[in-house]
Amino acid sequence: MFPLQVNPERLSQYFDEFTQIGQTDEGGSQRTTFSPAHFAAREWFQNAALQAGLGFEIDRAGNHSARLNCAPAAAPTLLLGSHLDSVPNGGQYDGVLGVLAALEVLLTLKDSGLQLPFQLEAIDFTDEEGTVSGLLGSLAITGQLTPEMLAKPRCGHEYFQQGLERAGLSLAGVVSAQRAPETIRGYLELHIEQGSRLLAAGTHIGVVTSIVGINAYHIHFLGRADHAGTTPMPQRQNAAQGASAFLLDVHALVSEEYPNCTVNIGQIHLDPGAFNIVPAKATLNLEFRAPNDETLAAIDAEILKLAQTTAKKYNLRANAEFLSQHEAAPMSLEIQTAIQQAADHLGLKTMQLSSGAGHDAQSLAKICPTGMIFIPSVGGASHSPREFSEWADCLNGANVLLQTVLNLAKSA
Amino acid sequence: MFPLQVNPERLSQYFDEFTQIGQTDEGGSQRTTFSPAHFAAREWFQNAALQAGLGFEIDRAGNHSARLNCAPAAAPTLLLGSHLDSVPNGGQYDGVLGVLAALEVLLTLKDSGLQLPFQLEAIDFTDEEGTVSGLLGSLAITGQLTPEMLAKPRCGHEYFQQGLERAGLSLAGVVSAQRAPETIRGYLELHIEQGSRLLAAGTHIGVVTSIVGINAYHIHFLGRADHAGTTPMPQRQNAAQGASAFLLDVHALVSEEYPNCTVNIGQIHLDPGAFNIVPAKATLNLEFRAPNDETLAAIDAEILKLAQTTAKKYNLRANAEFLSQHEAAPMSLEIQTAIQQAADHLGLKTMQLSSGAGHDAQSLAKICPTGMIFIPSVGGASHSPREFSEWADCLNGANVLLQTVLNLAKSA
Repeated sequence: MFPLQVNPERLSQYFDEFTQIGQTDEGGSQRTTFSPAHFAAREWFQNAALQAGLGFEIDRAGNHSARLNCAPAAAPTLLLGSHLDSVPNGGQYDGVLGVLAALEVLLTLKDSGLQLPFQLEAIDFTDEEGTVSGLLGSLAITGQLTPEMLAKPRCGHEYFQQGLERAGLSLAGVVSAQRAPETIRGYLELHIEQGSRLLAAGTHIGVVTSIVGINAYHIHFLGRADHAGTTPMPQRQNAAQGASAFLLDVHALVSEEYPNCTVNIGQIHLDPGAFNIVPAKATLNLEFRAPNDETLAAIDAEILKLAQTTAKKYNLRANAEFLSQHEAAPMSLEIQTAIQQAADHLGLKTMQLSSGAGHDAQSLAKICPTGMIFIPSVGGASHSPREFSEWADCLNGANVLLQTVLNLAKSA
Repeated sequence: MFPLQVNPERLSQYFDEFTQIGQTDEGGSQRTTFSPAHFAAREWFQNAALQAGLGFEIDRAGNHSARLNCAPAAAPTLLLGSHLDSVPNGGQYDGVLGVLAALEVLLTLKDSGLQLPFQLEAIDFTDEEGTVSGLLGSLAITGQLTPEMLAKPRCGHEYFQQGLERAGLSLAGVVSAQRAPETIRGYLELHIEQGSRLLAAGTHIGVVTSIVGINAYHIHFLGRADHAGTTPMPQRQNAAQGASAFLLDVHALVSEEYPNCTVNIGQIHLDPGAFNIVPAKATLNLEFRAPNDETLAAIDAEILKLAQTTAKKYNLRANAEFLSQHEAAPMSLEIQTAIQQAADHLGLKTMQLSSGAGHDAQSLAKICPTGMIFIPSVGGASHSPREFSEWADCLNGANVLLQTVLNLAKSA
């Protein structure tokens, strides 16, 4: 018997229709949270679901959900989804593929008339990309969103308030949108890789093992301001030299000792900043990522030690100002297995990999079995008009999502 | 016969009176151009000169001059001086010592009744430190100040206009304040070293051989912006890595190959600047200084080459955006010799050195025999309340200035 497959024409038509919304001059997409294009995108999703005969709900966090009742009334719900918002001048695949494929999986199963041991919900989470605060909708339904996290919206209070109002939401409603965990069977998210590991390995499907943990710091090197013309070079305590040596060493450390991890120094600021004054202070914006908390802690310890030894070498002082930690989110083994078997069943090559980027799946992983399916990104580009995936890979991803649902139905 | 010496009590009293003006809470001085303290400082100078029986003049660039007629009417004028303006929260010696010592030398020679082959003028140049534009008064009298150089005053147009008005000056007058070069016999400036070479060498007097030339650039390294979580480390084109390697190498180059030169990178800016985006661009604010134009050009060539080789190593591109060049200003050999003989005559130890900082002497060097006398700076600090020189060294400097005038009188 051939495995059940999604309807490629319908999914293709959905994708073509959807990508008309919020197109940018450079061929990318811009559907930032609460922008007109974002409202248009969510309206399109609602219309498509209703026209296809699915149920539709909007919760108090603004999450938009198409629903298929395909199980006994008391059964929990398996969520499939991603997000329809985008970064400014982003791509056409990030988030969109996961929501449209989820919608298509619901319709394929509706067409099939199969009864499952769980209801199905295709969900578009609010503000994954962080126009407001990031992962807003998924943190809300899993009970992890606090009023403090919305106290300083990145888009500003006025834009946020007007957006909430237009969306028919309220601040109090958003932070109390938690769902009872026992009503959620699990969460599956199909997403583009946003990197180049799958293509480099000649692989169709990535089985995500975890979403990386991220630590962020300001690292400060402190020296002495001196006249850059009159102070002999050997007598300087130049904070920029310590910062530069640290930057090179920290990249070498992670590249050589932690091959599945990343580090980035996104900004450097020197004080007082004049051409003719030896920098007295250098501040580095540092983040590093690791697929599990043990490795994250190990890198953390090595980097903080490196700051001290570097400072000593250049006759400086160093201090590390901790900013934030996002714990690594391991994906459920049950769901990784179901994804693996789905891909095997379809004859698709797989590899296990961690997600270097954050996703709504990390919020869900706290309360239910959660898994992610990656498909190849051509050139590895994302958050950019250059973002592109082959249509055959998108279809493969949707079919793996469908088969994973069926595998979970067998084991449920 | 004992050499003629300045009156130490009078000079000390002048210094004590003067340093009451514009004192800051931290024990420094603030007499920025056209500030109330700056006007008070210039008024003090005028009163002191007039009370002591000297002539006094203010030219169209606002330069304040005490004059001693000690030569036939047609004789040219030997200028002695420095500046009474300061940087914000600066020290008590920078500029002040040179003007007060010049005043004292005029009075000592007035008291002596000696006739010289030149007139003497103790001059306080306008805006040496650059509240408005830097070296304003000395560029003006040497015919090097253009209206373009005053088009964007650092202090803003309003402050500049009000300052000119209060000082009884006009823009048109300032830029036409050039003096006939043949009326100027030469220029001598006594100044604190603003560095620590004299003290490190156990020396009393620095005979300045040149004022360094300065080249300034923006150096840009260009790579590629990528997601800092999803792009494997080896595939990045990280502009910050190139910038850091360049910074370290450029410091090593100048420290090791050009011992009398300096380099500084005062600011670094990374684009786009986010924690989670690999820097696509790094911009470095670079300046370097050398005591002569040949060495400046040699460093220039090596640094631009280093930018290219570093870029290549990190798979980046580099370009160097030229900002400005101040040519090195060699001091007159005649005057260096006169200073050397003056110090020898007084039994003071000397060393030759270049000035890493800019001075009004570099303007004068373009049109007349010019020399500078340095005295030790304790700790090398300058432009800071920590600026300090021993009183004995200040007195030595004033006496070397006096003897240098007498040596030039012999040879004139």
